[in-house]
Amino acid sequence: MADAATGRADISELFQLLRDGTPRTRAELAKSTGLARSTVTGRVDELMRMGLITPVGEGASTGGRPPSQFALNPGAKVVVAADLGASHATVAVADLSGELIEERSEPLPIDRGPEQVLTWVVDGTDALLESIGRRRADVAAIGIGLPGPVEHSTGQPVNPPIMPGWDRFDVPGWVREHLDVPVLVDNDVNISALGERALRWPGTDHFLFVKVATGIGAGIISDGRLQRGAQGTAGDIGHVRVARDVDVPCRCGNSGCLEALASGPALARTLRERGIEARTGGDVVRLVKAGNLEAIQAVRQAGRDIGEVLTTAVSLVNPSVIAIGGSMSRVGEHLIAGVREVVYTRSAPLATEHLAIVQSAAADRAAVRGAAILAVEHALSPEGLAHAFAPARA
Amino acid sequence: MADAATGRADISELFQLLRDGTPRTRAELAKSTGLARSTVTGRVDELMRMGLITPVGEGASTGGRPPSQFALNPGAKVVVAADLGASHATVAVADLSGELIEERSEPLPIDRGPEQVLTWVVDGTDALLESIGRRRADVAAIGIGLPGPVEHSTGQPVNPPIMPGWDRFDVPGWVREHLDVPVLVDNDVNISALGERALRWPGTDHFLFVKVATGIGAGIISDGRLQRGAQGTAGDIGHVRVARDVDVPCRCGNSGCLEALASGPALARTLRERGIEARTGGDVVRLVKAGNLEAIQAVRQAGRDIGEVLTTAVSLVNPSVIAIGGSMSRVGEHLIAGVREVVYTRSAPLATEHLAIVQSAAADRAAVRGAAILAVEHALSPEGLAHAFAPARA
Repeated sequence: MADAATGRADISELFQLLRDGTPRTRAELAKSTGLARSTVTGRVDELMRMGLITPVGEGASTGGRPPSQFALNPGAKVVVAADLGASHATVAVADLSGELIEERSEPLPIDRGPEQVLTWVVDGTDALLESIGRRRADVAAIGIGLPGPVEHSTGQPVNPPIMPGWDRFDVPGWVREHLDVPVLVDNDVNISALGERALRWPGTDHFLFVKVATGIGAGIISDGRLQRGAQGTAGDIGHVRVARDVDVPCRCGNSGCLEALASGPALARTLRERGIEARTGGDVVRLVKAGNLEAIQAVRQAGRDIGEVLTTAVSLVNPSVIAIGGSMSRVGEHLIAGVREVVYTRSAPLATEHLAIVQSAAADRAAVRGAAILAVEHALSPEGLAHAFAPARA
Repeated sequence: MADAATGRADISELFQLLRDGTPRTRAELAKSTGLARSTVTGRVDELMRMGLITPVGEGASTGGRPPSQFALNPGAKVVVAADLGASHATVAVADLSGELIEERSEPLPIDRGPEQVLTWVVDGTDALLESIGRRRADVAAIGIGLPGPVEHSTGQPVNPPIMPGWDRFDVPGWVREHLDVPVLVDNDVNISALGERALRWPGTDHFLFVKVATGIGAGIISDGRLQRGAQGTAGDIGHVRVARDVDVPCRCGNSGCLEALASGPALARTLRERGIEARTGGDVVRLVKAGNLEAIQAVRQAGRDIGEVLTTAVSLVNPSVIAIGGSMSRVGEHLIAGVREVVYTRSAPLATEHLAIVQSAAADRAAVRGAAILAVEHALSPEGLAHAFAPARA
C-alpha cells in the first residue's frame, strides 16, 4: 500500500468509511464510494490481509448466500498514550477505538528532565506490551501530553515554565529513536479537551476545556476539531490580564495575569496574606471542603476572574459547553459558580442561550484518554495508515 | 445527478479535484481518485454536459493523439453577492472563481427594514443579470452580509442593535421566494474576513479580521475555515469589558464594553467631552488627518483598548495575521500602533513571534468579495452542486 499511489486514495476512502465501526457489505461500500465492485473486492481483501478490518456477521440476503460484512478491527494494532504531569506520569496502551487496555501511573516529577522521564515512558510501554502479549511492532503511534506549551509543527516544548531542561528538546526525535513509531506531542490541556469531549460530550462540536491547577489553560474544539493556532499556542489563557487587580506580579514578567490571581498557588498566597495557613492549591481545596469561609470567598473570586477571561472566549469562539477541570476544580461548585456569575452576566444573550458551564466529569482520566485519541486519529489517518501497516516493518 | 446516489460521491470527488482550476487529463483524474477509467470517462462527460468543467488545452502526449485536459468552467453559473451596511448597500454578480463581474452600490439605510432592503437586492440582481446577459436560472447561490449578529443555522438576524425590523426576520426564506436559489447569510465581519484573506492573505490559515467602525467585531479563520461557533456569534468582541474604564455605560446594558470605549461614536463622544467638535467617527478620522493632537491621542488609546481584547484573542486562537479594517482604520497608523503596543507587550513570545498586525488592504472591497466567496463555496460543495445543476430547474 505504501508505494501504490493509485490504490492509496481508494483504499483510504474505503477505510475512512469502515473505521466508524459500523459493519458494511462490499455492495454497500461500492455504493457509498462509487468505486467499481471489482476494486472494492480487491481493496477489502487487502485491508483484511493488513488486519485493519475484519468480517463481522452477515448482511441481509437477497436470495442465496448472505453477503459478508466488514468493520474496523480495533485490535489490529495498539497505540501508546502518555500523560506527563508536573509531578505524576501515566502511560497506557489503547486499542484503535481509543479504549484503554492497560496502564501504569506513578509519581514522576517532570523536572527530572526529558531523558529520564521519556525513558520511563519507553520502559513502561515495553512492560505494558509484555503484560498484554503484544510487541513493539504492534504499536501504530504514540501520543504524549506535556504540562507546557508545545510547538505543533515540531512537537517541541517552547519556554515551558515548569519543565527545566525540556525547552526545544526534540521529544518526537528522541522517542522515535527508542520506539520506531509516529510520535504526536501536545500540551496536557489540549489532550484533556479531546478526552473530556470523547468521554462525556461526544456530539458537541464547539467545546472548551479549562484546566485550573498550578497553571491555567484552555483546550478549544471548534467545528469538531482541536484548534491549535498558527504556532500551537491556542488556548494559552493563563497570562491574559484581568481587570480586577492589574498590579499582582506574575512569574511571566507581566502583572495582573489570570494565573497570578486565580491559580492554586495564587489562591494559597491570597489566603496566607490573610493569615490563613495554605501552601499549595491542595491546601486551598482542603480548606474549602472544610467550610473555611475565606477560602470559599477566594475560590469564588477566582471563578469570577476566570469567568472574565472566559467571557471573552465565549465572545470569540462561541462554545456550547465549557468544562472546568484541573486539580482546583475539586473545590466543587464554588469555583464554577463564580465563572457562571460573570459569563452569564457579561455575555451576549445569543452566545449563552444554550451554553452549559460544567465541572469536568472525566477528571484526571481525560488527559490519558485524549493522548490515546491523538495517537489513534493519526494512526487511522491516510498518512498514518501508510506507516502503521507498511509491510517492511518489524 | 441529483437522484443518482451511487454516482454522486464519485462525481463530487472528481469535481472537488477539478475546481482548483488546474487542468487535468482523464488518466490523471483516474490516478488521483482511484476510480475506474471507465467511471472517470462517464463522469467527465456528465460534468461537461452540466457545463461545470470545460476542456482546456491538451496534456503531454505519450505517442498518438495528446489527451484532453479539463478544469472548472468559472462561467458555468454565476453567484450574487450582497453587502448590506448600516447606511450603504452593494450587490454584485461574480463567477464561480469568486471574481466580481458587475456590481452596483448606493446609499440605503438598513433601518428601512428587511422587505425594502431585500427588494433592492432582488431588483439589483435582475438589473445586473440583464446587463451581463444572464438569466435568473444561471444563479447558483446568493451570499448576503448583514451589519449585525446572524444565527448561522437559520440565517436570521438575532437582536441586531442597528437593524430595527430585522430581528428574527427569515432572510433566506424571503429571498428564496423571489430568487429560487440557496441563500447564505452571515454578518459583515465574517464575510469581510473571507474577502480580506482571499484578496491579500490567500495562504494564511490562522487569520483574524477586526472591523472598527460604529461597532467593533472580529471574523476568525482557523485552520483555513471561518469559525462561527455554536450559535454563529463567534468573533462578537464588541461587548467584552476592557480593564481601563469599566464605568462607561454601553448601549447593550452593561458598562466598560470595548465598543463603548473604542468605536467611532465612542471616540467622538470622548472628544466632545474635551470640548472638541466631533459628532461621528468620520469627524474623528478627519480630525486625526488634520493633525489634531487630542484626536490622535484618543485614537491611540482606542487602539490600546482594542489591543487588550485582541491579546486575549491571540492567546485563544493564535492567528498569524490580524488585519484591522472598518471605517475607523482610515485614521492610518495611529490606531494600529496602539493595538501593537499592547498585543506585543502582553502576549506570550511564541504567540507573537510570527504575528503580523496590519491595516486591512482590501478595505470596503473585502465584504462584497467575501459574500461572493460564501456563495461560491456553497455552490461548488457537494450539497450545492446537487441544487445548482439539477436538471429540472428553470
